[in-house]
Amino acid sequence: MVCSIAGVLDAVGDRWAMLILRDLGLGLRRYDDLRKSTGVTHATLSDRLKHLEENDLIERRLYQTGPERHEYVLTRKGADVILVIQALAQVGDKWQIAGEKGPPLKFVNQNSGRAVKLALVDEKSGEVVRPRDVRPQAGPGADDLVRWRLTKFDR
Amino acid sequence: MVCSIAGVLDAVGDRWAMLILRDLGLGLRRYDDLRKSTGVTHATLSDRLKHLEENDLIERRLYQTGPERHEYVLTRKGADVILVIQALAQVGDKWQIAGEKGPPLKFVNQNSGRAVKLALVDEKSGEVVRPRDVRPQAGPGADDLVRWRLTKFDR
Repeated sequence: MVCSIAGVLDAVGDRWAMLILRDLGLGLRRYDDLRKSTGVTHATLSDRLKHLEENDLIERRLYQTGPERHEYVLTRKGADVILVIQALAQVGDKWQIAGEKGPPLKFVNQNSGRAVKLALVDEKSGEVVRPRDVRPQAGPGADDLVRWRLTKFDR
Repeated sequence: MVCSIAGVLDAVGDRWAMLILRDLGLGLRRYDDLRKSTGVTHATLSDRLKHLEENDLIERRLYQTGPERHEYVLTRKGADVILVIQALAQVGDKWQIAGEKGPPLKFVNQNSGRAVKLALVDEKSGEVVRPRDVRPQAGPGADDLVRWRLTKFDR
C-alpha cells in the first residue's frame, strides 16, 4: 500500500527519535544536551541519531577539533517534521496531558507576540477551513487499497 | 519533564496504532477492514486496539447480536489526533515519499472543492504566519527543564 503517513513514521523511527527532532527544532545541538533533555540512555540516543542521519533528517557536523566534537542539526527534511511536532503539542495541550497548569511551551508570532496554532486553510486563499468541511479524496498516487478505503468514508 | 508531545505519543503507542487511527479517521470501523487496510497480524491489531481503547482514543461498540459483532470508532480525543495524521500526510506528500505519481490522498474543502493544507495561523485573526516568524516560549506549565531548553533557542 502507498501511504505518506506510514512513510514519515518509518523515516522518523519511534517516539525517542521524535523527541530528538523536537529538541533539535528547539535549538539543542550537542549530544550531552540531547541526553539531558530526553533522558534516554547512551545506546538509545546513539542509535536514534544514526537512524535519523541515515534517513536524511539530521546532519552531524564537526564543530571542534582536538578533541573532535560533533553537533547535530536538522536538515531541511528534518525541519519539515516540526509540523508534526507542533500538531502533537497542540493536541497534548488541548488534553492538558502535561498537567493542569497549562502548556509547557507556547508558540508565538515573534512580530506580534500573539499565539499561533495549526489550522486547516484553503491552499489558495489561506482562509481557515472547519475540520468538518474537509474530506479525503483519491490523489494522483492512489492505489486500489487507497480507493477501497475511501469507499468507507461516510460523513 | 513535562511534555505534551511525549504525552500524545505515549497515548497513541506506536506506528501501527497511528495507522489504525488514520483508518478510523477515514471511516473504517470493522476489525476485518482494519486488518486489510493496515496489513498487520491479528495479535498486533488486537493489542493496539486495546491500547487505544485504554487511552480513551477509540470506543468499541456492539453493532450486531447473534453473533455479537463490534465496531471501532474514534472518541473526541481520538478525533483530535487526526491533526497529527494530517501533518504526517502533508510532510510525506512534500517528500513524495509514496512515489513520484503524487499524493495517494488529497484533503479538500467539500464546499469549494479546493485543496486544504495545515498552516500556522494567528490564534485571534486566523491569518497565516510564516514558520520562520514562530518562536517557542515558556508556557504556564513549564518546568526547569523546559526553561533550560529554551535558553538554547537561537534564531
